[in-house]
Amino acid sequence: MKVVALAGGVGGARLVDGLAQQLAPDTLTILVNTGDDFVHWGLHISPDLDTIMYTLAGLAHPTRGWGLATETFETLAAMERLGGPAWFRLGDRDLATHIRRTEQLHHAPLHAVTAELCQSLGVGHRVLPMSDAPCHTGIETEAYGLLSFQDWLVGRRGEPTVRKVHHGGAGADPAPGTLEAVRTADLVVLAPSNPYVSIDPILHCAEMRAAVSIRPVIALSPIVGGRAVKGPLAAMIPALAGRPASAQAVMDHYEGLVDAAVIETGDVVSGLPTLGTQTIMGDRSDRARLAGELLGFAARELL
Amino acid sequence: MKVVALAGGVGGARLVDGLAQQLAPDTLTILVNTGDDFVHWGLHISPDLDTIMYTLAGLAHPTRGWGLATETFETLAAMERLGGPAWFRLGDRDLATHIRRTEQLHHAPLHAVTAELCQSLGVGHRVLPMSDAPCHTGIETEAYGLLSFQDWLVGRRGEPTVRKVHHGGAGADPAPGTLEAVRTADLVVLAPSNPYVSIDPILHCAEMRAAVSIRPVIALSPIVGGRAVKGPLAAMIPALAGRPASAQAVMDHYEGLVDAAVIETGDVVSGLPTLGTQTIMGDRSDRARLAGELLGFAARELL
Repeated sequence: MKVVALAGGVGGARLVDGLAQQLAPDTLTILVNTGDDFVHWGLHISPDLDTIMYTLAGLAHPTRGWGLATETFETLAAMERLGGPAWFRLGDRDLATHIRRTEQLHHAPLHAVTAELCQSLGVGHRVLPMSDAPCHTGIETEAYGLLSFQDWLVGRRGEPTVRKVHHGGAGADPAPGTLEAVRTADLVVLAPSNPYVSIDPILHCAEMRAAVSIRPVIALSPIVGGRAVKGPLAAMIPALAGRPASAQAVMDHYEGLVDAAVIETGDVVSGLPTLGTQTIMGDRSDRARLAGELLGFAARELL
Repeated sequence: MKVVALAGGVGGARLVDGLAQQLAPDTLTILVNTGDDFVHWGLHISPDLDTIMYTLAGLAHPTRGWGLATETFETLAAMERLGGPAWFRLGDRDLATHIRRTEQLHHAPLHAVTAELCQSLGVGHRVLPMSDAPCHTGIETEAYGLLSFQDWLVGRRGEPTVRKVHHGGAGADPAPGTLEAVRTADLVVLAPSNPYVSIDPILHCAEMRAAVSIRPVIALSPIVGGRAVKGPLAAMIPALAGRPASAQAVMDHYEGLVDAAVIETGDVVSGLPTLGTQTIMGDRSDRARLAGELLGFAARELL
């Protein structure tokens, strides 16, 4: 079974980690949101690529949701003493990734630089950015107008109410290998990432959306019992869809794409084959457990 | 007494530290060699500016000759794991300086960025780069042809025999404030830095050399008893001047510029007023002692 997973940050990374434990490297490709990418301290930072690489390498911080498990913050403290910006917490070891990526991007496109970083970190599964071109997600807020994604999420803790999400990179091509991977996939998995700011940017390219729409697609709900497992999604659904946050609202958002859903036991989704199980992931074996259930359910229902 | 000091790395930084203890901030300007500047990890590194800033701020490593007294190397270790270059040892705290400088250089010239860094570090005396433009020193070697300065000094430990030193930045203007400082100075001090690769680059601009040549100039010899206190100078003098290393050889190199010399007790220089004293500097108070002797001698002999 060849699988493509579309993923963003922490929740996506955890499911992808489970999938990687169930699937051999040549049968899983991970397409990663780069709408959150930004330049900070003059460095090209790809938060979702990093979270996924670090998680697959077994290096991610187990609870914090960003950065490395073992980390120090000496450069950040020194930067603060120099009067530089310290609102985005870059660790010393993490910093090497950003410095290396930024420098290598002078010679090679993002997908090639990502492949090199993955290899150095011992990540065997294929991790592809959605595009080699910049595709910055903009957050239009009621209170502050248009904010850059990191300004909204990190700088203002995702609190300002969102009126609209803008997807940058109009006309940007999907990265080499991404469309081919989807077109030859037996199954596409939409990871439990924020639909508006993690999955939609990947699907913003019409060709990509069309390619996904004709494959069997299973989505894991990031909403559990009306709440987001992490991040600002629970507040975004009422603001953007005009209804309470629910697994149903997520699946309706994916209407025309999604063919089956995995949701938390007790949640309800109508109109789709649905597997109810424990969807909040713990340690690595728990991620493997959930990924195994998802793949088994998809095989029975969709293949 | 208004003083301008021309300085390069460690020895220069120590004398400058002594001068800064003897002279109020508005009476001392330090012109710093930037011929060693280079780009590493995509960052603009100015080794001599950093050594002088850190020394004046009391933050420099007391013996190592580069970097900060208290330092960690987590980013460097992570960079090495990523397969990136690790031959130039950048510490985590030091790194903040390079990141900040590189980013600020997008908005402002080097002299302004240097002033901001100095202010953040609590350095009150005026530190000016010799130029805002890149002026890379090239080292022509017998064995390897032309090497970049850091490749020669750090990458190959200054060992390849030097045939010729090339000064880049032909036609580059001295940084704003440098010529004015020299023209209004009562005394110019040539710090005990390498004449070929630290002081000559500052004097490479004809206007600067002419301005210095008509001021009272005192030089402190970096050669003591035929040996360099630090670095590759003792081997460069025979290779470039065809004579043994000596304080006399240094002063002859500065012929037409220098009006008085401070040398180690027991060394001999002819043709110039000379003060013999203990010139190898220890702690901060010892630097102040030597700077005081130098300023007193210059006042008696030259002003």
